[in-house]
Amino acid sequence: MKNLKFNSKIVLAQLNPISGDVEYNKNKAIENIKKALEINADMIIFPELFLLGYPIGDILGRYPFVASQCLKALDEIKEYCEKIAVLIGYPEINPNKTGKPYFNSIAYIKDKKILKSIRKSLLPNYQEHNDYRYFEPCEIDIKERIIELNDIKFGVIVCEDGWNDFDFFERNLYKKDPLKELASYIDVAICPASSPSRAKKEQLKHNMMSYVSEKYGIKYIYVNQTGANDELVYDGLSRVYDEKGTLSAMAKAFEEDFFVVNLSEKGKINPLPKGLELTLNSQKAFSLDHNPDLERTYKAIVVAIKDYFSKNGFERAVLGLSGGLDSTVCAVLLCDALGAKNVYGISMPSKLTSKESKNDAQELAQNLGINFLTIPIKDMHQVISDKFENLFDNISNNWCDRYTNSYTQDNIQARSRSMILWGIANEFPKTLPIATSDKSELYMGYATINGDMSGGYAPICDVVKTKLFALARWMNENRSRKNAIPISIINKPPGAELAINPETGRALLAEEALMPYEFLDEVIWRLENYNQSIDSMMKDEFLYEKKNNLDKTKKSEWLNKFFKRLNTALYKWYILPPGPVIDARSINKAEYRQPVISNISYLK
Amino acid sequence: MKNLKFNSKIVLAQLNPISGDVEYNKNKAIENIKKALEINADMIIFPELFLLGYPIGDILGRYPFVASQCLKALDEIKEYCEKIAVLIGYPEINPNKTGKPYFNSIAYIKDKKILKSIRKSLLPNYQEHNDYRYFEPCEIDIKERIIELNDIKFGVIVCEDGWNDFDFFERNLYKKDPLKELASYIDVAICPASSPSRAKKEQLKHNMMSYVSEKYGIKYIYVNQTGANDELVYDGLSRVYDEKGTLSAMAKAFEEDFFVVNLSEKGKINPLPKGLELTLNSQKAFSLDHNPDLERTYKAIVVAIKDYFSKNGFERAVLGLSGGLDSTVCAVLLCDALGAKNVYGISMPSKLTSKESKNDAQELAQNLGINFLTIPIKDMHQVISDKFENLFDNISNNWCDRYTNSYTQDNIQARSRSMILWGIANEFPKTLPIATSDKSELYMGYATINGDMSGGYAPICDVVKTKLFALARWMNENRSRKNAIPISIINKPPGAELAINPETGRALLAEEALMPYEFLDEVIWRLENYNQSIDSMMKDEFLYEKKNNLDKTKKSEWLNKFFKRLNTALYKWYILPPGPVIDARSINKAEYRQPVISNISYLK
Repeated sequence: MKNLKFNSKIVLAQLNPISGDVEYNKNKAIENIKKALEINADMIIFPELFLLGYPIGDILGRYPFVASQCLKALDEIKEYCEKIAVLIGYPEINPNKTGKPYFNSIAYIKDKKILKSIRKSLLPNYQEHNDYRYFEPCEIDIKERIIELNDIKFGVIVCEDGWNDFDFFERNLYKKDPLKELASYIDVAICPASSPSRAKKEQLKHNMMSYVSEKYGIKYIYVNQTGANDELVYDGLSRVYDEKGTLSAMAKAFEEDFFVVNLSEKGKINPLPKGLELTLNSQKAFSLDHNPDLERTYKAIVVAIKDYFSKNGFERAVLGLSGGLDSTVCAVLLCDALGAKNVYGISMPSKLTSKESKNDAQELAQNLGINFLTIPIKDMHQVISDKFENLFDNISNNWCDRYTNSYTQDNIQARSRSMILWGIANEFPKTLPIATSDKSELYMGYATINGDMSGGYAPICDVVKTKLFALARWMNENRSRKNAIPISIINKPPGAELAINPETGRALLAEEALMPYEFLDEVIWRLENYNQSIDSMMKDEFLYEKKNNLDKTKKSEWLNKFFKRLNTALYKWYILPPGPVIDARSINKAEYRQPVISNISYLK
Repeated sequence: MKNLKFNSKIVLAQLNPISGDVEYNKNKAIENIKKALEINADMIIFPELFLLGYPIGDILGRYPFVASQCLKALDEIKEYCEKIAVLIGYPEINPNKTGKPYFNSIAYIKDKKILKSIRKSLLPNYQEHNDYRYFEPCEIDIKERIIELNDIKFGVIVCEDGWNDFDFFERNLYKKDPLKELASYIDVAICPASSPSRAKKEQLKHNMMSYVSEKYGIKYIYVNQTGANDELVYDGLSRVYDEKGTLSAMAKAFEEDFFVVNLSEKGKINPLPKGLELTLNSQKAFSLDHNPDLERTYKAIVVAIKDYFSKNGFERAVLGLSGGLDSTVCAVLLCDALGAKNVYGISMPSKLTSKESKNDAQELAQNLGINFLTIPIKDMHQVISDKFENLFDNISNNWCDRYTNSYTQDNIQARSRSMILWGIANEFPKTLPIATSDKSELYMGYATINGDMSGGYAPICDVVKTKLFALARWMNENRSRKNAIPISIINKPPGAELAINPETGRALLAEEALMPYEFLDEVIWRLENYNQSIDSMMKDEFLYEKKNNLDKTKKSEWLNKFFKRLNTALYKWYILPPGPVIDARSINKAEYRQPVISNISYLK
């Protein structure tokens, strides 16, 4: 039998705002309120800080009048709220003479009035979060968080307010747990959020929300932002848990959803990206096993590209197609995000480019149906190289210590290609060139400044090489056009084809220049997820070690090489174009900063 | 007559640490403690968080073992502290299960023991400050902050702890004022700090410290970090105020100083950078008048270059010398920071480069004594341009909307030059190319990606054009070699010489492409210091308006152009190389982030 008490129709407005575009976000809100009125919904809930849009960066600091624009928007919105209750996030100006200038608040609107503003208490300030830069934590009476509607008592907590359970977490960042204080007074917790997607975060989130709703015997409504703004991709997946901690409804992943729930019934449960549901029973938030995460990775990057382009007024991408893995994966993702006709793949062979690479690039473009063109750079390389020889001779009259081995020739090739791509972007409207660097190579600084790491957007800058191989296979199996990626691209060992390895006489392979990717990627994983020093990594056994009988001297040599290269790669991270955050931890600027001049001893 | 009570010898160890280099910082600390022992000092005080070095970025988050390295360093340091009291900053691990993982603490060492750790209470999290990312605020009993030595009661506050006086400031960020709570128990306040230099900050700092020491009738010792790490330059200027709020001793500006004070006497007062002392009586922190700030600007940039190069292992710079103001000012600053023989100026004329520009560049190089070379780029430009023409024709078969007017030709020139500079840096050891973009042009996105805005370091990215003119004049008057900058460079109107203005038939001038710099720079100043919207700027009278009878339509047009261009410049800010923060507010990444996709209505 239905529990009549909970027979209310509630809309979870899982929407995609644009940071700082109050007019756009307001119109989106009004449109959704009208839709909710049409179906006679009792309440509509928007994500945290929806009128401003996450991430906020320093918008409030530099443009305080945007907060006033939000207030005006609220005034307009409330006129639509006679027959419906609305919860919508906005930056509330702090009227006190002490404290940060704003509160991160949820306006509760009903009967055309703003009945109360519920302020966020716990202000995250780690990784990509910067709430404490502008917001004062709320210290009001916990009962202020309660709203009553149709005899149901709802308690509103805002995003991080729900992430501080003292039993669930081993370590807590804050002294208060707003949900704990609130739980005994309410039937339903409502949590408007703006929570970016990251590897293994879903399992932690699910376990936690399930845990607290069962623990307190309350229903739990979670409404998340979706879409991407710069580097952050919000997965949506708004949801409801019942009093037993069971998931009873879930909105779509990575897209907008006007999601209607009735708390007395089990609703539609849209699927998680494939693979993730297998991991929900484990509290362990990280694992070396990338496979379960491939659909989420694919969707997140496609949405990231789509939104970065459209929100910035771009429609088309141009990228170099080398026949290697990085540019290949980028091409597929761009094709799926922007449409094949909006992507131009340019093959720019030099004298070191193999026939196979050229063929692979062309075959890929054909399979994808994207535009394709070959423009050899041999002549350009030669002209520049000749010019340089004369120039360098001149300079070495004053600076006598010219390198006998340098990367100059390698870099001329990479930079000539980038010059061509930027030229195309300058000549054709709404076109961005693409930076194809991957995360493994960025850690090693194995990327050319103003070359392959230059572009308007860097789609795979937070994906390591071993995961890119898996992603390529996954796309070959799961896209409607099967096997678009020629298998030879996946099977050949990666190499930039910029220099000859004197030992082999063939084009230098990346693993010869660096170390095996399987090892390299595990170092990154251990560093990002466990913050291990060299000494600590020496003590643990790597998967690569287990398989390959690696001796300790070699292992130590590779680890030292890794951290030495990392230290000189910091400048490249500093000027890296924006790209989506995908992993649990990243080197994207949204999250991470290490001073370029820093000089850390990574030993222990 | 001397006040015997205060007859103690105290060393203000104004030092230049390297972020994250605990070994280096520890050795520097020990060396200074030994020097202090030699002169029988009673106490030596180091800057805030000295063992780690400011700024810390995310060092503690990614490499928590660095905190353990600091603890080991303290253990080593204390062995030298039998006959001297030491106050030294370090990240203290938070032993509690709740809260951020560290405290920002000052270890008080005496008799070879760490007698107490005094924790920072107020954790700044605005502009370049990120303390709250890793540090838990201290809530201990205020008396824990007191140390007694030679019958004097010292109270220790850490940097921001001293910036929350409720009478001095109109608005306060924090609810507590540690100094107020402490004042009645102590004779002397000690404030170890790491406080970066910014325009007009000195006058605020001086007024505040003078105010509180008089208000409470206590002496006030301030010990600041010096030198530069990445974008932040610390001016040092450690000092002492007496009970009447009078400055009684001040260490040097922008350099290390082993500064000995005796609280019973007036000590040496090293001068502030010229001009600043004139402003100390005003509480007004900002002014349009740049002149008083020129010596500080010069010194800050020179130190910034010196430290960025040496701490990263570089010694030499190569830059394009166009004969224009930006590259000229950069050349002088680099010459003074690195030495003339370590600077290479390259003149890279195109067909648009005037004879005057070439002569000016050469004359400048001669006057400075730096290395100089001319390498025309006409041939390179032609080859690339020809190649592009064919390529673009091909592409326009698929993308039919090719621009009729584009920046492609302008950009080929700027990118060819940058390719030459990066080539030189690749070929010669320890050499960095220089990005010469200035702040006015960066606001307008008037800089070429992978062109003039590309480089390893951007010395003048936080200096607006009108101030650069003033700085050029100041350097001509104040450097030992007078008038090194040819006056024609200062007198001619700025222009990139990349395109022809069809209206004049001559090379397009920057002010024709943008708006008058005097107007532009005032917009920046109003935006950064008063956060004004377009509407609010329309209401105020600009200096330029007053002088030039500007009509409102034109003013509105320029303002709208400014903000439109700013919106598209955001991506360029995102990939801008590091450069020193100079102004009260900046767009350097250390301080400011606006999402690239953001879409703000700047009207009101």
